[in-house]
Amino acid sequence: MMREDRIIDFLKRHFPEHIGDDAAVIPLSHEPYMISQDALIEDVHFRCRYQSAESLAHKALHVNLSDMAAMGAKPRFVLLSLSASPTASHYVLDFLKAFVVACQAHDVQLIGGDTTRSPGPLCLNVTILGTSQGSLKYRHQAQPGDHIYISGPLGHAHLGLTALERNQSGFEYYKQCFLTPTARVAEGQWLAQQKAVHAMMDLSDGLSLDLKKLIQASHCDAIIDLENWTYSEEESRLYHTLDLSPLETTLTGGEDYALLLTVDPHEATTLSTHFQNVFGTTLKYIGHIESCQQDPHIHYRRNGRTTHLNLKPFEHF
Amino acid sequence: MMREDRIIDFLKRHFPEHIGDDAAVIPLSHEPYMISQDALIEDVHFRCRYQSAESLAHKALHVNLSDMAAMGAKPRFVLLSLSASPTASHYVLDFLKAFVVACQAHDVQLIGGDTTRSPGPLCLNVTILGTSQGSLKYRHQAQPGDHIYISGPLGHAHLGLTALERNQSGFEYYKQCFLTPTARVAEGQWLAQQKAVHAMMDLSDGLSLDLKKLIQASHCDAIIDLENWTYSEEESRLYHTLDLSPLETTLTGGEDYALLLTVDPHEATTLSTHFQNVFGTTLKYIGHIESCQQDPHIHYRRNGRTTHLNLKPFEHF
Repeated sequence: MMREDRIIDFLKRHFPEHIGDDAAVIPLSHEPYMISQDALIEDVHFRCRYQSAESLAHKALHVNLSDMAAMGAKPRFVLLSLSASPTASHYVLDFLKAFVVACQAHDVQLIGGDTTRSPGPLCLNVTILGTSQGSLKYRHQAQPGDHIYISGPLGHAHLGLTALERNQSGFEYYKQCFLTPTARVAEGQWLAQQKAVHAMMDLSDGLSLDLKKLIQASHCDAIIDLENWTYSEEESRLYHTLDLSPLETTLTGGEDYALLLTVDPHEATTLSTHFQNVFGTTLKYIGHIESCQQDPHIHYRRNGRTTHLNLKPFEHF
Repeated sequence: MMREDRIIDFLKRHFPEHIGDDAAVIPLSHEPYMISQDALIEDVHFRCRYQSAESLAHKALHVNLSDMAAMGAKPRFVLLSLSASPTASHYVLDFLKAFVVACQAHDVQLIGGDTTRSPGPLCLNVTILGTSQGSLKYRHQAQPGDHIYISGPLGHAHLGLTALERNQSGFEYYKQCFLTPTARVAEGQWLAQQKAVHAMMDLSDGLSLDLKKLIQASHCDAIIDLENWTYSEEESRLYHTLDLSPLETTLTGGEDYALLLTVDPHEATTLSTHFQNVFGTTLKYIGHIESCQQDPHIHYRRNGRTTHLNLKPFEHF
């Protein structure tokens, strides 16, 4: 691997302000900082066989940007820890170059981190700091009656991952959904400013798992109307090729990084029209929140009738 | 491994305030926050064979506390990322319990992180946030004439590590220096308040490597007076048993986590007496700073005569 001092010199040239002491000083801000961190481990979250260093750099940043988007924060600073085997030096150098570019593209400053040897897998850990833009959204503020929306398609990254794992040709769009997901940073910041939005989070582990976390935090039930999902003949064929159920993949596939939100039902139509006008994409209605009697549950319905689904939660490799 | 939701539930019970959303909100502060992160990778930084889960938890926190100590900050919050093989669940549970206790003992709140599977090694990544206590110290403010001090012994952790690696019995004190180092948090905060202290950092990679970083940041030379280190017969015997040179181990052994500081020469005696009165331990004088002509260098001297040393920098396993 590249020597640690060379890596630090390289990063310092691009981000001279903060790197060089035992800790970085975060500038004072009138708005509170948000912080989160995500690990990406080789052969658990990615495989170098089909994940180029450049796409990994994009993804490592975006899964963290997505945590900021989920709360409506503006991403500001990152710290990068990188543990790599000595044999991976070319990959690491390409990764670092691309990571710098990705940070600059999103106006995010790299202010610290760590580089160490790894006995095997490449291990990445990115910590991200953002500032609140005056209003933040949490998971615990969903209210009975709220409509549930998602900001983008689900299951596509899982379809892509499956194609990659099986060396299936084609599926290029879906493969890119997995390899280079895009955090909904602007959408998250905009949605956080809307009073009608009650609760928000990002979808990284799949709808069934992530929505469960949201309703547990809010102590509510969720009703998901399955008839909202339909699949074109072409889509059905693609799922069929990989022996995947379209609906199950939609409900459990992870890593799409769409936003999940609950909205005041009286404001929902106005909000989604407004969103469409601003971003040119639609907020998709998928169900609503109800008060719960005991433990929070997701109820799946089709045309008003409860359907029992035996969903296997999303797992990485 | 334990399921991620159980790990989060466990940690949430102990730190209910911040965990549960995509990102944690850091409370506003009048003093700027410092941030740093350190990775600890199995078979690079530790071996489970002789590093108990409890001692690893202590160490994972203290190497990060030490970065705060190095600048004189008060540690406030940590984020923990943990990637472990499914077979390591007992070790992981013991680690988590001990990590919670260690955080509580240092009044540090756990506010986030990530837990994932690992295909092999246990990978830890701790991010720490602290607040400035009004005055911070950096690496770049050493001045020609400054006296150089260290706040504790050097080489002991490396002696312990060598004994552990070679399954050598005895060496208990030295083994603990490696397994459970103690960050000089109170000392760092106190030293940061002293005007006489110009530059400061912690010693994690060994004196020769770390002092080099300090003089590069300050663009100075350092003169180290080797006659300041003497070894008792007992110590010499221990080094001899492990076939280590006492002086080389002192100058290059890593992971002692003592503080390295440069001090205004006119105030140096007063400061070290004052330090001794407050902490009951001595600041050890090891040399001084000089202005440099070209690239910053460390010059080793014995009784005023330059000695050429061929030092191999400290490496983990």
